[in-house]
Amino acid sequence: MPEISPIRPTDDEARALARRLLDEARFGALGVIDPATATPLVTRIAVGTDSGGRPVSLVSDLSAHTRALKADPACSLLVGEPGARGDALTHPRLTLQARAHFVRAGDPGHGALRARWLAGHPKSTLYVDFADFAFVLFEVGAAHLNGGFGRAFVLSPGDLGLR
Amino acid sequence: MPEISPIRPTDDEARALARRLLDEARFGALGVIDPATATPLVTRIAVGTDSGGRPVSLVSDLSAHTRALKADPACSLLVGEPGARGDALTHPRLTLQARAHFVRAGDPGHGALRARWLAGHPKSTLYVDFADFAFVLFEVGAAHLNGGFGRAFVLSPGDLGLR
Repeated sequence: MPEISPIRPTDDEARALARRLLDEARFGALGVIDPATATPLVTRIAVGTDSGGRPVSLVSDLSAHTRALKADPACSLLVGEPGARGDALTHPRLTLQARAHFVRAGDPGHGALRARWLAGHPKSTLYVDFADFAFVLFEVGAAHLNGGFGRAFVLSPGDLGLR
Repeated sequence: MPEISPIRPTDDEARALARRLLDEARFGALGVIDPATATPLVTRIAVGTDSGGRPVSLVSDLSAHTRALKADPACSLLVGEPGARGDALTHPRLTLQARAHFVRAGDPGHGALRARWLAGHPKSTLYVDFADFAFVLFEVGAAHLNGGFGRAFVLSPGDLGLR
C-alpha cells in the first residue's frame, strides 16, 4: 500500500511564495547539532540575504550556534514568522536545509556583505566590527515550503533562484 | 587563557522568565534530525503544556518532523516569539533540548492531554481525532534562556519547575 504523501507538485506560486518568505525574513530559527550532546539545538538568529539571494546571518563566536556550526556546518533555517494574531500553523513558512560558510573581516566578499547587511540591519552597526562577529552564508541544499494546512512543497535551490 | 563566557548565574528572574515563555507559547520551532540526510531540520509546530508544565505538541504522522522523531527522539524546541515590531534579537526566547515521547489515542494520559490541548487550541477539534495525529510530550533535559543581548542563562529542568 503506497504511503499517502502530503507533498504537492511545485508550481510558480509556490516558488514565488518561498522566495518572498526568504526575502522578507528579518530573523529565523536556526537548527544545528550541539557538539556537546550530538543532538539538535534551535536558536534565533538575524536573517538577511546576499546579492545573490542566499540567506545570510551575522553571528558571534561566543554563541552556542556558532560553536556548533564550526564543528558541523550542516544546519536548517526556518523563516516566515506569523503575526501576533491568528493561527500560526496557517501562516506560510519555509524550512531550508543548508551548509554554513563563515565570511570574516578580510575574507573575499566581506565588504559587500557588510554593506548590504547594515543597509537592512542598521542596529548591527554597534557590533558588526567586533572581533568575535562574522557573517554566515547558508548554501541551500533543499527547501520545504509549508503554505498552510495541507499545502506542502519540496523545493530545489533552483526553485528559489539560487545557483 | 580562559574563554569568555556570556552565561550569567541563574536567578529567580531568569527562572520566572523562562517559565513564562513556555507557558505563553502557542507555537515554536522544532529541530530534529532528518533521517534521510542525518542533518538538522527545523519546522513550526503548535505548542502547549501538560498539567505538569511540560511542553506538548499535536503532530501528524504525515509530517517530516514526526517521521524524524520516530527515528530519533532527540530534539530541540525554541519558544518565545517576537512581535511584528522592534528588534527580534532583543526579544527573550527559550531553547529546550528534549526527548520526544508519543502519546496516542488509547495510551495512558491521552484523554487528559486531549482535553487540556483543546481548551487552549480549540481549532484542533477539527483534526485531533484523525488517526494520523498524536500528542508529543517533550521531556526537557536542558534549557538555554536568552533574555536579550548579553543576557544568557543555562537552566535545568528543575529551574523550569519540571520533575
